[in-house]
Amino acid sequence: MSWFDPSFPSTLLQQAVDAFCRLPGVGRRTALRMALYLLKQPKEDVEHFGQAFIRLRHEVKYCRICNMLSDADICPICADPKRDDSIVCVVESIRDVMSIEQTGQFRGRYHVLGGIISPIDGVGPNDLSIDALMERLDRGGIAEMLLALSTTMEGETTAFYLSKRANSYPVRITAIARGVGFGDELESTDELTLGRAIQNRQPFNFQI
Amino acid sequence: MSWFDPSFPSTLLQQAVDAFCRLPGVGRRTALRMALYLLKQPKEDVEHFGQAFIRLRHEVKYCRICNMLSDADICPICADPKRDDSIVCVVESIRDVMSIEQTGQFRGRYHVLGGIISPIDGVGPNDLSIDALMERLDRGGIAEMLLALSTTMEGETTAFYLSKRANSYPVRITAIARGVGFGDELESTDELTLGRAIQNRQPFNFQI
Repeated sequence: MSWFDPSFPSTLLQQAVDAFCRLPGVGRRTALRMALYLLKQPKEDVEHFGQAFIRLRHEVKYCRICNMLSDADICPICADPKRDDSIVCVVESIRDVMSIEQTGQFRGRYHVLGGIISPIDGVGPNDLSIDALMERLDRGGIAEMLLALSTTMEGETTAFYLSKRANSYPVRITAIARGVGFGDELESTDELTLGRAIQNRQPFNFQI
Repeated sequence: MSWFDPSFPSTLLQQAVDAFCRLPGVGRRTALRMALYLLKQPKEDVEHFGQAFIRLRHEVKYCRICNMLSDADICPICADPKRDDSIVCVVESIRDVMSIEQTGQFRGRYHVLGGIISPIDGVGPNDLSIDALMERLDRGGIAEMLLALSTTMEGETTAFYLSKRANSYPVRITAIARGVGFGDELESTDELTLGRAIQNRQPFNFQI
Protein backbone atom coordinates (compact mmCIF):
# COMPACT_ATOMS: atom_id res chain seq x y z
CA MET A 1 0.00 0.00 0.00
CA SER A 2 2.77 2.42 0.83
CA TRP A 3 5.23 1.83 -1.96
CA PHE A 4 4.49 5.03 -3.81
CA ASP A 5 2.73 6.98 -1.10
CA PRO A 6 5.57 9.47 -0.57
CA SER A 7 5.33 10.44 -4.22
CA PHE A 8 1.56 10.72 -4.30
CA PRO A 9 0.76 14.20 -5.52
CA SER A 10 -2.92 14.37 -4.59
CA THR A 11 -5.19 12.95 -1.91
CA LEU A 12 -8.04 12.91 -4.44
CA LEU A 13 -5.96 10.68 -6.69
CA GLN A 14 -5.00 8.55 -3.71
CA GLN A 15 -8.66 8.10 -2.77
CA ALA A 16 -9.61 7.09 -6.31
CA VAL A 17 -6.74 4.59 -6.42
CA ASP A 18 -7.77 3.22 -3.01
CA ALA A 19 -11.34 2.83 -4.32
CA PHE A 20 -10.25 0.87 -7.40
CA CYS A 21 -7.97 -1.27 -5.22
CA ARG A 22 -10.99 -2.56 -3.33
CA LEU A 23 -12.22 -4.33 -6.46
CA PRO A 24 -11.36 -8.01 -6.84
CA GLY A 25 -8.22 -8.58 -8.89
CA VAL A 26 -7.12 -4.93 -9.02
CA GLY A 27 -3.68 -4.08 -7.68
CA ARG A 28 -2.26 -0.62 -7.04
CA ARG A 29 -0.54 -0.28 -10.39
CA THR A 30 -3.72 -1.15 -12.28
CA ALA A 31 -5.75 1.12 -10.00
CA LEU A 32 -3.41 4.03 -10.72
CA ARG A 33 -3.69 3.41 -14.45
CA MET A 34 -7.49 3.40 -14.15
CA ALA A 35 -7.57 6.62 -12.10
CA LEU A 36 -5.25 8.45 -14.52
CA TYR A 37 -7.44 7.23 -17.38
CA LEU A 38 -10.49 8.79 -15.74
CA LEU A 39 -8.65 12.11 -15.45
CA LYS A 40 -8.45 12.26 -19.23
CA GLN A 41 -12.18 11.64 -19.76
CA PRO A 42 -14.84 14.37 -20.01
CA LYS A 43 -16.34 15.38 -16.67
CA GLU A 44 -19.85 14.20 -17.55
CA ASP A 45 -18.54 10.78 -18.55
CA VAL A 46 -16.84 10.37 -15.19
CA GLU A 47 -20.03 11.57 -13.47
CA HIS A 48 -21.99 8.81 -15.24
CA PHE A 49 -19.23 6.33 -14.46
CA GLY A 50 -19.37 6.96 -10.71
CA GLN A 51 -23.17 7.23 -10.62
CA ALA A 52 -23.59 3.87 -12.39
CA PHE A 53 -22.22 2.05 -9.33
CA ILE A 54 -24.12 4.17 -6.80
CA ARG A 55 -27.40 3.66 -8.70
CA LEU A 56 -26.76 -0.07 -9.05
CA ARG A 57 -26.30 -0.49 -5.32
CA HIS A 58 -29.13 1.83 -4.25
CA GLU A 59 -31.80 1.05 -6.83
CA VAL A 60 -31.38 -2.59 -7.72
CA LYS A 61 -34.04 -4.98 -6.48
CA TYR A 62 -34.26 -8.72 -5.99
CA CYS A 63 -37.14 -10.61 -7.58
CA ARG A 64 -39.89 -11.35 -5.02
CA ILE A 65 -40.33 -14.83 -6.47
CA CYS A 66 -36.89 -16.18 -7.36
CA ASN A 67 -34.49 -13.79 -5.56
CA MET A 68 -32.77 -12.91 -8.86
CA LEU A 69 -31.39 -9.42 -9.43
CA SER A 70 -34.05 -7.31 -11.10
CA ASP A 71 -35.04 -3.77 -11.99
CA ALA A 72 -38.65 -4.48 -11.02
CA ASP A 73 -40.36 -6.40 -8.20
CA ILE A 74 -40.57 -9.44 -10.44
CA CYS A 75 -37.68 -10.33 -12.74
CA PRO A 76 -38.10 -10.76 -16.53
CA ILE A 77 -37.72 -14.55 -16.26
CA CYS A 78 -40.45 -14.96 -13.61
CA ALA A 79 -42.64 -12.48 -15.53
CA ASP A 80 -42.25 -14.35 -18.83
CA PRO A 81 -45.51 -16.26 -19.50
CA LYS A 82 -43.80 -18.49 -22.08
CA ARG A 83 -41.53 -20.23 -19.57
CA ASP A 84 -42.25 -23.59 -17.99
CA ASP A 85 -43.69 -23.27 -14.46
CA SER A 86 -43.31 -26.97 -13.72
CA ILE A 87 -39.53 -26.97 -13.36
CA VAL A 88 -37.45 -24.79 -11.08
CA CYS A 89 -33.66 -24.67 -11.33
CA VAL A 90 -31.95 -23.99 -8.00
CA VAL A 91 -28.65 -22.08 -8.21
CA GLU A 92 -26.23 -20.42 -5.84
CA SER A 93 -25.93 -16.99 -7.44
CA ILE A 94 -27.13 -14.44 -9.99
CA ARG A 95 -24.14 -15.32 -12.11
CA ASP A 96 -25.19 -18.96 -12.37
CA VAL A 97 -28.56 -17.88 -13.78
CA MET A 98 -26.74 -15.78 -16.38
CA SER A 99 -24.47 -18.73 -17.27
CA ILE A 100 -27.39 -21.12 -17.69
CA GLU A 101 -29.40 -18.57 -19.68
CA GLN A 102 -26.47 -18.25 -22.06
CA THR A 103 -26.68 -21.93 -22.90
CA GLY A 104 -30.26 -21.46 -24.13
CA GLN A 105 -31.00 -25.01 -22.89
CA PHE A 106 -33.31 -24.20 -19.99
CA ARG A 107 -36.79 -22.75 -20.36
CA GLY A 108 -38.10 -23.23 -16.82
CA ARG A 109 -37.94 -20.96 -13.76
CA TYR A 110 -35.08 -20.29 -11.35
CA HIS A 111 -34.51 -19.98 -7.65
CA VAL A 112 -31.41 -18.11 -6.47
CA LEU A 113 -30.26 -19.24 -3.03
CA GLY A 114 -27.98 -16.24 -2.60
CA GLY A 115 -25.10 -18.41 -1.41
CA ILE A 116 -24.23 -21.93 -0.45
CA ILE A 117 -24.16 -23.80 2.86
CA SER A 118 -20.62 -23.44 4.19
CA PRO A 119 -20.00 -24.00 7.90
CA ILE A 120 -16.40 -22.78 7.52
CA ASP A 121 -17.63 -19.40 6.24
CA GLY A 122 -20.44 -19.35 8.80
CA VAL A 123 -23.18 -19.70 6.17
CA GLY A 124 -26.06 -21.89 7.34
CA PRO A 125 -29.41 -22.74 5.71
CA ASN A 126 -31.11 -19.78 7.40
CA ASP A 127 -28.77 -17.36 5.60
CA LEU A 128 -30.08 -18.56 2.23
CA SER A 129 -33.49 -18.18 0.59
CA ILE A 130 -34.40 -21.82 1.28
CA ASP A 131 -37.66 -21.11 3.12
CA ALA A 132 -38.84 -19.10 0.12
CA LEU A 133 -38.03 -22.08 -2.11
CA MET A 134 -40.03 -24.43 0.13
CA GLU A 135 -42.97 -21.99 0.01
CA ARG A 136 -42.82 -22.16 -3.78
CA LEU A 137 -42.94 -25.96 -3.62
CA ASP A 138 -45.78 -25.68 -1.11
CA ARG A 139 -47.87 -23.55 -3.48
CA GLY A 140 -47.72 -26.47 -5.94
CA GLY A 141 -47.38 -26.61 -9.70
CA ILE A 142 -43.67 -27.51 -9.56
CA ALA A 143 -43.04 -31.05 -10.77
CA GLU A 144 -39.25 -30.96 -10.89
CA MET A 145 -36.55 -29.24 -8.85
CA LEU A 146 -33.26 -29.21 -10.79
CA LEU A 147 -30.24 -28.67 -8.56
CA ALA A 148 -27.50 -26.80 -10.49
CA LEU A 149 -24.91 -26.38 -7.76
CA SER A 150 -21.14 -26.54 -7.78
CA THR A 151 -19.47 -29.94 -7.42
CA THR A 152 -17.69 -28.79 -4.29
CA MET A 153 -18.14 -30.04 -0.72
CA GLU A 154 -20.38 -27.02 -0.05
CA GLY A 155 -22.39 -27.63 -3.21
CA GLU A 156 -22.94 -31.29 -2.33
CA THR A 157 -23.89 -30.38 1.26
CA THR A 158 -26.41 -27.82 0.03
CA ALA A 159 -27.86 -30.29 -2.50
CA PHE A 160 -28.21 -32.91 0.23
CA TYR A 161 -29.90 -30.45 2.60
CA LEU A 162 -32.32 -29.26 -0.10
CA SER A 163 -33.23 -32.80 -1.14
CA LYS A 164 -34.03 -33.62 2.51
CA ARG A 165 -36.17 -30.51 2.93
CA ALA A 166 -38.01 -31.09 -0.36
CA ASN A 167 -38.60 -34.73 0.40
CA SER A 168 -42.13 -34.16 1.71
CA TYR A 169 -43.28 -32.46 -1.49
CA PRO A 170 -44.45 -34.35 -4.57
CA VAL A 171 -41.52 -33.07 -6.61
CA ARG A 172 -38.92 -34.92 -8.64
CA ILE A 173 -35.41 -33.85 -7.59
CA THR A 174 -32.76 -33.88 -10.32
CA ALA A 175 -29.21 -32.60 -10.60
CA ILE A 176 -27.23 -31.41 -13.62
CA ALA A 177 -25.09 -34.14 -15.19
CA ARG A 178 -21.53 -34.63 -14.01
CA GLY A 179 -19.08 -35.91 -16.58
CA VAL A 180 -16.16 -35.13 -18.84
CA GLY A 181 -16.50 -31.65 -20.32
CA PHE A 182 -16.47 -30.98 -24.07
CA GLY A 183 -12.88 -30.41 -25.13
CA ASP A 184 -11.47 -32.10 -22.03
CA GLU A 185 -8.86 -34.81 -22.40
CA LEU A 186 -9.46 -38.10 -20.61
CA GLU A 187 -5.94 -38.24 -19.23
CA SER A 188 -6.35 -34.87 -17.52
CA THR A 189 -9.80 -35.66 -16.08
CA ASP A 190 -9.75 -36.54 -12.38
CA GLU A 191 -10.65 -40.12 -11.47
CA LEU A 192 -13.83 -39.22 -9.55
CA THR A 193 -15.28 -37.39 -12.55
CA LEU A 194 -14.17 -40.09 -14.98
CA GLY A 195 -15.55 -42.85 -12.73
CA ARG A 196 -18.92 -41.11 -12.48
CA ALA A 197 -18.94 -40.50 -16.25
CA ILE A 198 -18.52 -44.25 -16.84
CA GLN A 199 -21.25 -45.13 -14.33
CA ASN A 200 -23.63 -42.63 -15.91
CA ARG A 201 -22.89 -43.63 -19.50
CA GLN A 202 -25.47 -42.64 -22.11
CA PRO A 203 -26.72 -44.18 -25.38
CA PHE A 204 -24.39 -42.91 -28.10
CA ASN A 205 -25.93 -40.23 -30.30
CA PHE A 206 -24.36 -38.93 -33.48
CA GLN A 207 -26.06 -35.54 -33.23
CA ILE A 208 -24.49 -33.35 -30.59
CA MET B 1 -20.60 -6.81 -26.29
CA SER B 2 -23.75 -8.80 -26.88
CA TRP B 3 -22.67 -12.26 -25.87
CA PHE B 4 -24.64 -12.37 -22.66
CA ASP B 5 -27.01 -9.47 -23.23
CA PRO B 6 -30.11 -11.65 -23.62
CA SER B 7 -29.50 -13.07 -20.16
CA PHE B 8 -28.90 -9.72 -18.51
CA PRO B 9 -31.41 -9.46 -15.69
CA SER B 10 -31.13 -5.74 -14.96
CA THR B 11 -30.35 -2.57 -16.89
CA LEU B 12 -28.73 -1.14 -13.74
CA LEU B 13 -26.34 -4.07 -13.69
CA GLN B 14 -25.76 -3.70 -17.42
CA GLN B 15 -24.91 -0.02 -16.99
CA ALA B 16 -22.46 -0.75 -14.17
CA VAL B 17 -20.80 -3.47 -16.27
CA ASP B 18 -20.63 -1.09 -19.25
CA ALA B 19 -19.00 1.52 -17.01
CA PHE B 20 -16.33 -0.87 -15.77
CA CYS B 21 -15.73 -2.02 -19.35
CA ARG B 22 -14.63 1.48 -20.30
CA LEU B 23 -11.58 1.14 -18.04
CA PRO B 24 -8.32 0.09 -19.68
CA GLY B 25 -7.70 -3.64 -19.46
CA VAL B 26 -11.18 -4.57 -18.18
CA GLY B 27 -13.21 -7.06 -20.22
CA ARG B 28 -16.88 -7.92 -19.76
CA ARG B 29 -16.29 -10.94 -17.55
CA THR B 30 -14.09 -8.96 -15.18
CA ALA B 31 -16.54 -6.05 -15.26
CA LEU B 32 -19.39 -8.37 -14.29
CA ARG B 33 -17.34 -9.78 -11.42
CA MET B 34 -16.63 -6.23 -10.22
CA ALA B 35 -20.28 -5.16 -10.45
CA LEU B 36 -21.50 -8.24 -8.57
CA TYR B 37 -18.83 -7.57 -5.94
CA LEU B 38 -20.20 -4.05 -5.42
CA LEU B 39 -23.69 -5.47 -4.90
CA LYS B 40 -22.42 -7.32 -1.84
CA GLN B 41 -20.86 -4.23 -0.25
CA PRO B 42 -22.63 -1.86 2.18
CA LYS B 43 -24.48 1.01 0.46
CA GLU B 44 -22.33 3.74 2.01
CA ASP B 45 -19.14 2.01 0.84
CA VAL B 46 -20.44 1.94 -2.74
CA GLU B 47 -21.47 5.60 -2.38
CA HIS B 48 -17.88 6.49 -1.40
CA PHE B 49 -16.57 4.29 -4.18
CA GLY B 50 -18.52 6.08 -6.90
CA GLN B 51 -17.98 9.54 -5.42
CA ALA B 52 -14.19 9.05 -5.28
CA PHE B 53 -14.03 9.09 -9.10
CA ILE B 54 -16.48 11.97 -9.50
CA ARG B 55 -14.59 14.06 -6.94
CA LEU B 56 -11.24 13.22 -8.52
CA ARG B 57 -12.40 14.43 -11.92
CA HIS B 58 -14.25 17.52 -10.70
CA GLU B 59 -11.98 18.76 -7.93
CA VAL B 60 -8.45 17.89 -8.96
CA LYS B 61 -6.19 20.73 -10.01
CA TYR B 62 -2.99 21.03 -11.96
CA CYS B 63 -0.03 22.87 -10.43
CA ARG B 64 0.25 26.44 -11.80
CA ILE B 65 4.03 26.08 -12.01
CA CYS B 66 4.82 22.55 -13.18
CA ASN B 67 1.44 21.25 -14.48
CA MET B 68 1.55 18.29 -12.07
CA LEU B 69 -1.66 16.91 -10.59
CA SER B 70 -2.32 18.65 -7.30
CA ASP B 71 -4.94 19.27 -4.61
CA ALA B 72 -3.86 22.93 -4.34
CA ASP B 73 -2.85 25.64 -6.85
CA ILE B 74 0.79 24.73 -6.30
CA CYS B 75 1.83 21.10 -5.91
CA PRO B 76 3.77 19.82 -2.87
CA ILE B 77 6.99 19.46 -4.91
CA CYS B 78 6.93 23.05 -6.21
CA ALA B 79 5.95 24.29 -2.74
CA ASP B 80 8.81 22.43 -1.02
CA PRO B 81 11.49 25.01 -0.10
CA LYS B 82 14.13 22.28 0.36
CA ARG B 83 14.20 21.27 -3.30
CA ASP B 84 16.76 22.49 -5.81
CA ASP B 85 15.44 25.34 -8.00
CA SER B 86 18.38 25.20 -10.38
CA ILE B 87 17.40 21.93 -12.09
CA VAL B 88 14.10 21.13 -13.77
CA CYS B 89 13.26 17.63 -14.95
CA VAL B 90 10.96 17.56 -17.99
CA VAL B 91 8.60 14.57 -18.21
CA GLU B 92 5.66 13.49 -20.30
CA SER B 93 3.15 12.64 -17.59
CA ILE B 94 2.10 12.68 -13.95
CA ARG B 95 3.05 9.04 -13.74
CA ASP B 96 6.65 9.75 -14.75
CA VAL B 97 6.96 12.21 -11.85
CA MET B 98 5.69 9.49 -9.51
CA SER B 99 8.16 6.96 -10.95
CA ILE B 100 11.13 9.33 -10.56
CA GLU B 101 10.05 10.36 -7.05
CA GLN B 102 10.04 6.71 -6.09
CA THR B 103 13.71 6.39 -6.96
CA GLY B 104 14.57 9.10 -4.41
CA GLN B 105 17.42 10.17 -6.73
CA PHE B 106 16.10 13.55 -7.83
CA ARG B 107 15.71 16.58 -5.57
CA GLY B 108 15.05 19.28 -8.17
CA ARG B 109 11.81 20.54 -9.70
CA TYR B 110 9.64 19.04 -12.45
CA HIS B 111 7.80 20.16 -15.52
CA VAL B 112 4.99 17.95 -16.82
CA LEU B 113 4.40 18.37 -20.55
CA GLY B 114 1.04 16.62 -20.43
CA GLY B 115 1.89 14.46 -23.44
CA ILE B 116 4.50 13.97 -26.11
CA ILE B 117 4.85 15.29 -29.66
CA SER B 118 3.23 12.70 -31.91
CA PRO B 119 2.15 13.74 -35.41
CA ILE B 120 0.40 10.38 -35.90
CA ASP B 121 -1.84 11.05 -32.90
CA GLY B 122 -2.25 14.70 -33.90
CA VAL B 123 -0.32 16.00 -30.90
CA GLY B 124 1.84 19.02 -31.71
CA PRO B 125 3.99 21.31 -29.54
CA ASN B 126 1.05 23.66 -28.95
CA ASP B 127 -0.93 20.87 -27.28
CA LEU B 128 1.75 20.53 -24.59
CA SER B 129 2.79 22.89 -21.81
CA ILE B 130 5.98 23.88 -23.64
CA ASP B 131 5.37 27.65 -23.60
CA ALA B 132 5.00 27.48 -19.82
CA LEU B 133 8.34 25.67 -19.63
CA MET B 134 10.02 28.36 -21.74
CA GLU B 135 8.54 31.04 -19.47
CA ARG B 136 10.12 29.25 -16.51
CA LEU B 137 13.50 29.27 -18.27
CA ASP B 138 12.91 32.94 -19.13
CA ARG B 139 12.39 33.86 -15.48
CA GLY B 140 15.91 32.56 -14.84
CA GLY B 141 17.43 30.59 -11.97
CA ILE B 142 17.35 27.31 -13.87
CA ALA B 143 20.84 26.08 -14.70
CA GLU B 144 19.96 22.60 -15.98
CA MET B 145 17.04 21.14 -17.90
CA LEU B 146 17.02 17.33 -17.54
CA LEU B 147 14.99 15.60 -20.25
CA ALA B 148 13.45 12.39 -18.89
CA LEU B 149 11.43 11.25 -21.89
CA SER B 150 10.74 7.84 -23.39
CA THR B 151 13.28 6.38 -25.83
CA THR B 152 10.64 6.18 -28.53
CA MET B 153 10.48 8.09 -31.79
CA GLU B 154 8.02 10.51 -30.16
CA GLY B 155 10.24 10.92 -27.11
CA GLU B 156 13.31 11.68 -29.24
CA THR B 157 11.31 14.12 -31.39
CA THR B 158 10.06 15.94 -28.31
CA ALA B 159 13.56 16.05 -26.80
CA PHE B 160 14.94 17.48 -30.05
CA TYR B 161 12.20 20.12 -30.24
CA LEU B 162 12.71 21.14 -26.61
CA SER B 163 16.48 21.39 -26.99
CA LYS B 164 16.00 23.68 -30.02
CA ARG B 165 13.53 25.90 -28.18
CA ALA B 166 15.71 26.09 -25.06
CA ASN B 167 18.85 26.82 -27.07
CA SER B 168 18.59 30.57 -26.58
CA TYR B 169 18.56 30.27 -22.79
CA PRO B 170 21.72 29.91 -20.68
CA VAL B 171 20.69 26.42 -19.53
CA ARG B 172 22.56 23.14 -19.68
CA ILE B 173 20.42 20.50 -21.38
CA THR B 174 20.89 16.92 -20.19
CA ALA B 175 19.06 13.64 -20.74
CA ILE B 176 18.72 10.59 -18.50
CA ALA B 177 21.29 7.89 -19.25
CA ARG B 178 20.47 5.18 -21.77
CA GLY B 179 22.05 1.79 -21.21
CA VAL B 180 21.57 -1.79 -20.12
CA GLY B 181 19.10 -2.00 -17.23
CA PHE B 182 19.91 -3.65 -13.90
CA GLY B 183 19.01 -7.32 -14.12
CA ASP B 184 19.03 -7.29 -17.94
CA GLU B 185 21.01 -9.90 -19.81
CA LEU B 186 23.38 -8.70 -22.52
CA GLU B 187 22.19 -11.28 -25.02
CA SER B 188 18.62 -10.04 -24.76
CA THR B 189 19.54 -6.35 -25.00
CA ASP B 190 18.89 -4.82 -28.42
CA GLU B 191 21.95 -3.75 -30.41
CA LEU B 192 21.13 -0.02 -30.39
CA THR B 193 20.96 0.05 -26.60
CA LEU B 194 24.07 -2.12 -26.23
CA GLY B 195 26.00 -0.01 -28.77
CA ARG B 196 25.08 3.20 -26.95
CA ALA B 197 25.98 1.63 -23.60
CA ILE B 198 29.47 0.84 -24.93
CA GLN B 199 29.92 4.33 -26.37
CA ASN B 200 28.84 5.92 -23.09
CA ARG B 201 30.92 3.64 -20.89
CA GLN B 202 31.64 4.86 -17.37
CA PRO B 203 34.56 4.50 -14.93
CA PHE B 204 33.93 1.27 -13.01
CA ASN B 205 32.71 1.80 -9.47
CA PHE B 206 32.39 -0.93 -6.87
CA GLN B 207 29.63 0.84 -4.92
CA ILE B 208 26.32 0.70 -6.71
